[in-house]
Amino acid sequence: MNAPEKLPPSTFRFTLSAWSAQQLAAVEQALSRWVACPSNAPAPAGLGDAMRYAVLDGGKRLRPLLVMAACEAVNGNAHAALRSACAVELIHAYSLVHDDLPCMDNDVLRRGKPTVHVKFGQAQALLAGDALQALAFELLTPDDDSVDAATQARLCRMLAQAAGFQGMAGGQAIDLASVGRPLTSAQLHEMHRLKTGALLQASVMMGAACGTASLAAPKVQSALRDYGAAVGLAFQVVDDVLDVTADSATLGKTAGKDAAQDKPTFVSLLGLQASKDYAQQLLAQALASLESSGLRNTDALQALADMLVNRAH
Amino acid sequence: MNAPEKLPPSTFRFTLSAWSAQQLAAVEQALSRWVACPSNAPAPAGLGDAMRYAVLDGGKRLRPLLVMAACEAVNGNAHAALRSACAVELIHAYSLVHDDLPCMDNDVLRRGKPTVHVKFGQAQALLAGDALQALAFELLTPDDDSVDAATQARLCRMLAQAAGFQGMAGGQAIDLASVGRPLTSAQLHEMHRLKTGALLQASVMMGAACGTASLAAPKVQSALRDYGAAVGLAFQVVDDVLDVTADSATLGKTAGKDAAQDKPTFVSLLGLQASKDYAQQLLAQALASLESSGLRNTDALQALADMLVNRAH
Repeated sequence: MNAPEKLPPSTFRFTLSAWSAQQLAAVEQALSRWVACPSNAPAPAGLGDAMRYAVLDGGKRLRPLLVMAACEAVNGNAHAALRSACAVELIHAYSLVHDDLPCMDNDVLRRGKPTVHVKFGQAQALLAGDALQALAFELLTPDDDSVDAATQARLCRMLAQAAGFQGMAGGQAIDLASVGRPLTSAQLHEMHRLKTGALLQASVMMGAACGTASLAAPKVQSALRDYGAAVGLAFQVVDDVLDVTADSATLGKTAGKDAAQDKPTFVSLLGLQASKDYAQQLLAQALASLESSGLRNTDALQALADMLVNRAH
Repeated sequence: MNAPEKLPPSTFRFTLSAWSAQQLAAVEQALSRWVACPSNAPAPAGLGDAMRYAVLDGGKRLRPLLVMAACEAVNGNAHAALRSACAVELIHAYSLVHDDLPCMDNDVLRRGKPTVHVKFGQAQALLAGDALQALAFELLTPDDDSVDAATQARLCRMLAQAAGFQGMAGGQAIDLASVGRPLTSAQLHEMHRLKTGALLQASVMMGAACGTASLAAPKVQSALRDYGAAVGLAFQVVDDVLDVTADSATLGKTAGKDAAQDKPTFVSLLGLQASKDYAQQLLAQALASLESSGLRNTDALQALADMLVNRAH
């Protein structure tokens, strides 16, 4: 056997678009296979159609990308990460379906398409959301050896906490109670920490939880938690900015609706330019946290934070 | 040390009321502590109140009792069973909250009280249901040594499947699609197997899953699965009978509503007497399955099946 040839110095440079394309292909394929797939495990009476409509062919898949990036940073179990990525996306998708219902935001346009209840009726939309939440936990607990039991249990715990009353649902309750009322900066932060921040942060932490315990040292955990918190908050600040500066076609959803509904936002509280500056500060914090983690393979996490803050929609 | 006195022959006889009272005290206390308890982990903006209203002070707790009884039959981990009992009840409670919403059954009375959306508004009811589902999985995954990771993962898997599109949510979708349409006996059975049967059966199987693997031998598993299926179906047959024969005050919910909504039921399909006979046949099947399990401590499972079929509300 010949000695291996000496390779030239690596010219590899990380590009988010190539990395994302690869991850998204896997995530889309997995979602398509796992979400009430007709040939696999049919959901009765149109429920599967509504579930698939709510999840497939749309969405930036930001949460799945964060899961995959965090798993990569700790060199974790990629199969566990793929399941986690899909599970987190299902929680996100169900929350949108329920959020769009007439008794909530009453929105008719989402990702450039009619919302689920417009297409399938309110009752089916309600059920589809409920079933998507259950499916998220089903995806995290495969009945085989692909993900060890301790990781399965840990992932379920993290997702349940992030989705529930101390996470996303709690944030939505604050949102509900705050329409038309002035919020302090602290209250607005708390609302978004729960409403969108918890699930974004959980995406990062779940990806990291797919790694071995040694890599999940307290210092790494804490750095990734800070990264997740900064990224989660920045996401919402940018969302508020875009709600003012972008149009519906670019957003794929109704623009200007926060102002129209008299909802408190970072822009209404801080002003437009200060909100933009704040998003950049949060990006810097997120990158500093990554730096402090001591992890070496954080290219994707870095690039995602940058993309998320500097996105146009 | 003296030799122990010889005890007189045991006069112990199992009584369901005494057993249930003991189990229910533990379940109610646990629910009260774990469901968004204000002193423990407050849920924001009224969400905790809505969640607690939906769960506490009401309900027969049939599912928790099945969990505890099955755990007892296999001499399982009682703490895991208590968590499972509460988790199953939270799934049941959330399904009632969502089911009562105007876009579904539009019911205003439940357990003799105004339904959650009547009391708290539709949006809060929707969120409370969503948060209760997440909390169920949180209860199953305690971050301590009280339940081993393999059991946690297994319980999550079982509950997610029973709650989701191949279980309760799927059955509700069939229900939704079947209003005002004639169903065959096979279709009616399938609807109820999913809508109520899946979670009742899961209650039995989750209780059994709190036992050690040796007791969860295939023969035992299969017998308990059959018991759960028979009990789950019998429950619905009796529900249909009571919808015709009992009044709203006795039921604690609106009587006669299936007929009013032109919903197919066992009574409309088989007739009243044949439905009563069918329930008794299913009871006999359930008891025969228990007998075949070879388990010795099935008093509570036997008595629950009997109570469930011969109940007055």
